[in-house]
Formats: sequence, C-alpha cells, structure tokens
Amino acid sequence: MTLRVVARVVTLPGKESEFKALALPLVEATRLETGCIKYELLQNLNDPTDFTFVEEWVNDAALNLHLQAPHFVEAAGKLDGLVAMAPDIRRYEVIF
Amino acid sequence: MTLRVVARVVTLPGKESEFKALALPLVEATRLETGCIKYELLQNLNDPTDFTFVEEWVNDAALNLHLQAPHFVEAAGKLDGLVAMAPDIRRYEVIF
Repeated sequence: MTLRVVARVVTLPGKESEFKALALPLVEATRLETGCIKYELLQNLNDPTDFTFVEEWVNDAALNLHLQAPHFVEAAGKLDGLVAMAPDIRRYEVIF
Repeated sequence: MTLRVVARVVTLPGKESEFKALALPLVEATRLETGCIKYELLQNLNDPTDFTFVEEWVNDAALNLHLQAPHFVEAAGKLDGLVAMAPDIRRYEVIF
C-alpha cells in the first residue's frame, strides 16, 4: 500500500505567479526522488489562489525524506509573504 | 487538458464505516461512467473522519453528468446524519 498526500496551499491574492515560480523547481526536483511515485500541482479553476499538491509515495519514510530534502526545505522557507496560511499537508491511504 | 477534482468529506465521529458502505457502490458505478478517468477515495491516516476523493474527468461536461447521475444523487442524499459539513468539491487543472 503506497502513501498518498493531499497538500493544500492558499496564496495571498496576487502572489499566484510568484508561488508557481517557486513551485516549479520543487516539483521537478521532487519527481527525481527515488520514493516519489507521483507529484502533481493543481490550481483551482474557480479560485486561482488555491493550489493542491496530489502526491503518491512508496511509503512514509520516502515522504519524510522528501520533507527534509534541501529543495523542499528551501521552497518551504520562501513561502512567507506568499501564503495566506501554513500549508495543509495530509497523509492518506486509498480505500477504494 | 483533463479536469481534476479534489473533494473532501468529513464524517461525524463513529460514522466512518457507514460512509464507506455508502461510498463503495458510488465509486464502483462512477468508474463505469464514460467520462471518468480516475476516481479514488482516500482516508486520512491521522484522522479517520477525513475522506478525500481524488478524481480525473475528461472534461467539465463529464463531471456535470456525474453530479446528476442517479448513483451520485442517491449517495449524496444519504449523507445527512453521516457528515460534519457539506462535501467540499473543488475543480482543478494540473499546472505542473
């Protein structure tokens, strides 16, 4: 059973492009991590400030490694001033 | 570009199994819909009352058909007494 993650980031109005510029290298680097199965960034069609990462990891340990990886720590460190609240990162398992 | 949906359902404590019993036939019937590419139900590993549907549809019209389909309307009609709030259904596009 793989690990799924749904992580929501809400930017401040007008900060969407800056967030996307920050997120692109994060997505590219993350997809190279051995434990990463899927890592996508979605933008809400009705609210452009609402971004959701939909992720799949081999296991919990792979996700924990990701959360300590320089590319993640660096990106997370630059969110101040871009986001309306702390990222909402949730761990899931698939039931159906 | 396909349409993505992330839909969150929070059950009342103790109603998780009842919700899952309601959701299983919904998932099975939905996957048979022509416009449905992916339709998965996830349960939060740290909060069993938190369920998230991660979906992919051919387009907006396919999703709208789904939301009018008998199996969806019937399931949605049975949520009263099971959920802590109305389902949070969001439409997204993939950006990375």
